[in-house]
Amino acid sequence: MTLTCGIDVGGTKIAGGVVDPEGNVLAHSTVQSPADHVEAIEDAIVDLVNKLRTDHPVEAVGVGAAGYVDRSRSKVLLAPNLAWRDIDLRAELEPRLDVPVLIENDANAAAWGEFTYGAGHDVDDLLLVTVGTGIGGGVVLDGQLYRGAFGVAGEVGHLRVVRDGQLCGCGKHGCFEQYASGSALVRNARAAAASGGHAADAVVERAGGDPDRIDGKMITDAAQEGDAFAIEQLANLGRWLGEGIAALATVLDPAAVAIGGGVSEAGDLILEPLRVAFAKHLSGLPHRPLAEIRSATLGNRAGLIGAADLARR
Amino acid sequence: MTLTCGIDVGGTKIAGGVVDPEGNVLAHSTVQSPADHVEAIEDAIVDLVNKLRTDHPVEAVGVGAAGYVDRSRSKVLLAPNLAWRDIDLRAELEPRLDVPVLIENDANAAAWGEFTYGAGHDVDDLLLVTVGTGIGGGVVLDGQLYRGAFGVAGEVGHLRVVRDGQLCGCGKHGCFEQYASGSALVRNARAAAASGGHAADAVVERAGGDPDRIDGKMITDAAQEGDAFAIEQLANLGRWLGEGIAALATVLDPAAVAIGGGVSEAGDLILEPLRVAFAKHLSGLPHRPLAEIRSATLGNRAGLIGAADLARR
Amino acid sequence: MTLTCGIDVGGTKIAGGVVDPEGNVLAHSTVQSPADHVEAIEDAIVDLVNKLRTDHPVEAVGVGAAGYVDRSRSKVLLAPNLAWRDIDLRAELEPRLDVPVLIENDANAAAWGEFTYGAGHDVDDLLLVTVGTGIGGGVVLDGQLYRGAFGVAGEVGHLRVVRDGQLCGCGKHGCFEQYASGSALVRNARAAAASGGHAADAVVERAGGDPDRIDGKMITDAAQEGDAFAIEQLANLGRWLGEGIAALATVLDPAAVAIGGGVSEAGDLILEPLRVAFAKHLSGLPHRPLAEIRSATLGNRAGLIGAADLARR
Amino acid sequence: MTLTCGIDVGGTKIAGGVVDPEGNVLAHSTVQSPADHVEAIEDAIVDLVNKLRTDHPVEAVGVGAAGYVDRSRSKVLLAPNLAWRDIDLRAELEPRLDVPVLIENDANAAAWGEFTYGAGHDVDDLLLVTVGTGIGGGVVLDGQLYRGAFGVAGEVGHLRVVRDGQLCGCGKHGCFEQYASGSALVRNARAAAASGGHAADAVVERAGGDPDRIDGKMITDAAQEGDAFAIEQLANLGRWLGEGIAALATVLDPAAVAIGGGVSEAGDLILEPLRVAFAKHLSGLPHRPLAEIRSATLGNRAGLIGAADLARR
Repeated sequence: MTLTCGIDVGGTKIAGGVVDPEGNVLAHSTVQSPADHVEAIEDAIVDLVNKLRTDHPVEAVGVGAAGYVDRSRSKVLLAPNLAWRDIDLRAELEPRLDVPVLIENDANAAAWGEFTYGAGHDVDDLLLVTVGTGIGGGVVLDGQLYRGAFGVAGEVGHLRVVRDGQLCGCGKHGCFEQYASGSALVRNARAAAASGGHAADAVVERAGGDPDRIDGKMITDAAQEGDAFAIEQLANLGRWLGEGIAALATVLDPAAVAIGGGVSEAGDLILEPLRVAFAKHLSGLPHRPLAEIRSATLGNRAGLIGAADLARR
Repeated sequence: MTLTCGIDVGGTKIAGGVVDPEGNVLAHSTVQSPADHVEAIEDAIVDLVNKLRTDHPVEAVGVGAAGYVDRSRSKVLLAPNLAWRDIDLRAELEPRLDVPVLIENDANAAAWGEFTYGAGHDVDDLLLVTVGTGIGGGVVLDGQLYRGAFGVAGEVGHLRVVRDGQLCGCGKHGCFEQYASGSALVRNARAAAASGGHAADAVVERAGGDPDRIDGKMITDAAQEGDAFAIEQLANLGRWLGEGIAALATVLDPAAVAIGGGVSEAGDLILEPLRVAFAKHLSGLPHRPLAEIRSATLGNRAGLIGAADLARR
Repeated sequence: MTLTCGIDVGGTKIAGGVVDPEGNVLAHSTVQSPADHVEAIEDAIVDLVNKLRTDHPVEAVGVGAAGYVDRSRSKVLLAPNLAWRDIDLRAELEPRLDVPVLIENDANAAAWGEFTYGAGHDVDDLLLVTVGTGIGGGVVLDGQLYRGAFGVAGEVGHLRVVRDGQLCGCGKHGCFEQYASGSALVRNARAAAASGGHAADAVVERAGGDPDRIDGKMITDAAQEGDAFAIEQLANLGRWLGEGIAALATVLDPAAVAIGGGVSEAGDLILEPLRVAFAKHLSGLPHRPLAEIRSATLGNRAGLIGAADLARR
Repeated sequence: MTLTCGIDVGGTKIAGGVVDPEGNVLAHSTVQSPADHVEAIEDAIVDLVNKLRTDHPVEAVGVGAAGYVDRSRSKVLLAPNLAWRDIDLRAELEPRLDVPVLIENDANAAAWGEFTYGAGHDVDDLLLVTVGTGIGGGVVLDGQLYRGAFGVAGEVGHLRVVRDGQLCGCGKHGCFEQYASGSALVRNARAAAASGGHAADAVVERAGGDPDRIDGKMITDAAQEGDAFAIEQLANLGRWLGEGIAALATVLDPAAVAIGGGVSEAGDLILEPLRVAFAKHLSGLPHRPLAEIRSATLGNRAGLIGAADLARR
C-alpha cells in the first residue's frame, strides 16, 4: 500500500498529512507558517514531512500552495500571501526529502481531493469553489485535473462579475471574490451596520458594539439563531455565488459544483439562495441540464488529501 | 486514405465537404437551409452527402449544428435557429446514410478544425471565439475537445459581461454576444448614427441615408477607408471582445485564442484594440503568461473540416 | 373666473380641456393625433381649442408636448414621437388662436398639475415620475416648476441606472426608462416567457399562447389575480423605479415623489417594492429624511390641467 | 458697507474670513480643527470670529460645514468627519457671537460663492462639483441656492454611477465619489502600481518605492511632467467626472458646471477628458444645448465667501 504525504501551505499555517490510496489520513500535523521567509517555509515543510513519515514511510510528497504554479508542477510563479516569486520549490525540496515532490495550486489540489474522495467522487466533471478570505477554484474535466496551458487555469476568484466594480487586490475591478468571499461578507456587513439604523444591532452587539469588529463567525452564528440582518448577509453572499457559478457553468458545464471553504459552513443559509440564483442566471434553461450544487465534504483537509493523491500518480 | 464528410448546418444554408486526413477539402457544396422544417433539413443533409460522395467515398459523416448537442453526440437538445428540440439527429441520419454519423455543436466543430489544421495546430489548449451574428465558442483542452458534463460547455456567447446589461435572446441580461457580436456592432452603430450629429455621416451615406440600414460590411468598408466613426465602432467591438476573453482566460488559461467568424474579417481594426483590452483586463499580469490572440485561418470551412475530422476519429 | 385651455399632445392622440382656477375640467375632448405632419397637428390643436371654447371662453392656451421645449416656452427643439425639430409652435398658434399660448414639456406640465391640484398640493418640492411607454419626469422646487437653464431639465427617463446597460432609443446605454418603463416591463416579461419553463404560462395564455403578444395590461391583470410570475415582473419594475428615484432624491431632495402614468395603475404591486428599494438605495439614511412615495392623483389629465394652469399665470 | 464673516469648518482645519459685498476677503485666518469635540469646535469658531472682527465689525456670520444641514439652516443633522449628530449649531453660536448666524452645507456655500463672485457669476443655473477626498456639490437654480425639501439636496458625491460598484463609506455601492474623487484616484493608482508591470515606475519612485505611499500630488506632478501612467490616471478621473456630470445635467440642466476642489488643480489634464466624456454620455445631443464645463475660480475660499454672502442676505 503506497502512502504519500500531502502538504497544504497557507498564509498562517502549514498542514500536512500521510494519506493512503483510499484517501484516509493516517497521520496529521500542523505548524505555524513563517509566511514571508521562503527558506523558513521550506525548512518547515521538510520538518513536517520528516515528522509525519517517521511512522508512515511515504513514497512521494505533494505540496499545495496558494498561487500560480507553472505547468511543470515545479515552480511557484507567484504566491501573494507567501512573498514567493519564481521559486522552484520542487528543486529545493526534492534533494532534501529524497522522494519525488510535486507542487500544485492549493485550490487545484483541493478540487482533486474532492473529486477523488469527496463531493465529486461520482462525477467526471467537477467544479470546486472554495469560499474563504478570497475565492479559489479548481476544475476537473473528463476525469482529469485541468491545469491550463500555463498552469494557471481556474482562477475563478478573479472572474469579473461586475464591470467597474469593487477594486480587487489583483488591481482589477469587479472580481468574483470581491462580492462572494468571506471578506466581502464582512466588509458589506460592517458597512451596513455602520451606516444603517437598528437592523444590525444584534450582530453589532456580538462585536462588542463596534461595527468594525464584526467577523464572519458572528454573522453565521447570528444567522443560525434567526437574526434577519445576518440571514440576509449570508443570502446576499449566496446569491452572488450563484451568479458567478452560473457564468462558470456556461463555460465549463460541470456535472456538479462543490462549495468548500470556511464560509461554506453556513450551509443552507448560503446554499439555498445560491441554488436559486444559479438557476435564475444560468443561460439556456430549461433546455440544458442544471449542475448539482453540493457541499464539499473533505473540509480543510481537501487540499492535502488531493496533493497527496496527485503525488502518488 | 480515409475520407469523411463534414456538414455545417446554419440558419440560412447548409455547407458540406469531403475532407481528407490532412484537412484538405476535396469537394465542397452548399444548399439553402429549409430552416424550420426538421425533415426537410434532414433530407437536404442526405442529398448533400450523397452528392458529395459520388466521387469521393466517405466512411463517416460529422454534422455541426448551432445548438445544444447532448454528450452522446447524437441528439440536438435545442437549436434556436433551426426550430429543433430534442431531435435524435444521428438516429435519423445513420440508417439513411449507412455510415457512422456524429453530431457536434458547430462552434465545437470549428474549434476542433482550427485546433487540428488551423490557427491552433501548434498548441494544446485553444479557445476559439467565433464572432458573427452572435458569439460562439469552442475549447480544446490538453489536446481534447472539451464538451462538458452535459455536452453544452463553451457557450461563451452567454457569459455575462455586464450585470443587468443588454437583454439577450436567451432571456438573460448582459451576455457577451450582446456587446461583442456583429449584431451588437450594427445595433450600436445604428443607434449612434440615429441620435448623434454628423460623425456617422459617411456610414449613413453608404446605407442610402437611412441609419437603420447600416450593416456590418458598411462599417468595415468605411473603417478600412479610414472613417473615424467606423473605426471607433470596430475598436469598441474589439475592446469588448478583449474584456470577455480576459474573463474566459482567467478560467480556461488557453495557450492561444483564435478569433473567427465573419466579423473577424475586419482584422487588426478589431484585433489590435482586442489585444490591448485583453492585457488590460486579465488578472494576474505580469506574473502569469498571456495567451496569444490570433486570427482563425480556416474561414467559414472550419466547422465542416472539424466535423469531418471528429467523425474520422 | 379666468378659464384657460390645456392641450396634451401625445404620439397617438391629442387631448384638450377647459380648466378653471380650482383645477376643474369643465369641458374635455380628444382627437386622433396626425403624428407625423406638423401642420396637421397644428390644425388639430386649433380645431380642438375652437371646439372647446365655444361654450367656455378661454383667455390663454397651454400646450404640453413630449420633447425638448426651449426656455422661452415657445419652441419645440425636438419631439421624437411627433417628428418635430425646431418648430416655433407658439409663433404658429398664437395668431390663429388669438390668445396667449405657452408651450411646455408634457411631463413638466403634468408635474405642475399634480403639484397644484393633485398629489403634491401639500408640499413645496415635488418630483413627478410618469411611467408609461417611457419614463418622463418633472420637478417642482421651492414651489416653482424647474425648467433648467435651457428648458430641458428633468429628463429623468434618461438618467443612467446601469453603466453599459440596455441600449436606449436616445443612443446611450442604461437609461432609467430601459429598466423601469412599461416597455421594459413588457420586454423583460416576453423574454422570460420565451426562454423559460412554465412559470409564465398563465400570462402567455392571456397572450393567446404567443409570448411576443404579452402586453402590460395582461401582466397587471394576471398579477392582480395572484399570478406569481406577473407579480414578480411588476415587483421588478418597482424595484428599478425605487433605485432610480433614490438617485434622483440624492440630488433633488424632494418632499414627495408622485408616480403617475399608465403603469402606475398597478398600484401597490409596484409601489410597495418601490418603497423598499428606495429606502434601501438612498444614501444617508437614517440621518436624512425620506421623501414620501405617492400615487399621482390626476390620472392622464394631469398634463392638460397643468398646461392650462401654467398658461393662466 | 455691510461686512460679514464666513467660516468653513473642515475635518482638519477651520478657515474664516471677513467678506465685503463685492466678495473681497478683507481678513483671513485659519486654525486647526479639534475635529471630534463638538464644544471645542464651537469654541474655535467663536475665537476665530472674535479675532477676525476686531478690525472689521461684522453684522452676521455664515458657517459652512460638511454634512447634512436642516432646512432651517440651523441644525447639523450629521457631519461624518466632525462627529456631529443633531447639533443645533446656530442656537449654540448666536448667543455667544451676538450677531445672526446661519449654518449651511459647505458645498452649498461654495456653490453660492462661485455663483455670486466666481465661475458662475454670468449664469442663473450653476452646478458646482468639488473634487477633493470625496465629491461635494451644490446647485444654484434660477438664481437661488437650491437646498431641497429637507435641506439635503445636491449630495452629488453619492449619486450612483455603477450599480453594485465600489463600496462607499455611506454604506451603498457605486457612489460617484468612489470613482471620481481624489481618494479614488489614489486608490486606483496604488492598485495599478502594486499589481502591474513597470508602467507606474516613475510615480512609485516619487513615493519612495512604495506604491502604498502614492498620493494625489505625486500623480499630478508626474502627469505635468509628461508621465504616461500619471496622465492616464488623471484622464480616467476626468472621464468618470464627465459621466457623472452627464447624469446630473440630464436632471438639472445647468448653464455651466464649475469644477472645484483640490484635485481640480490638475486642470486640463482632468478637464479635457471630462469634457469629451460629458458630451459622449449626455443624452439628447445635438438637440439639446451642452452646459459649459469650467474651472472654479475662488479656490478653497469659495466656501467661506459663499457662507459670508448667504449670512448677509
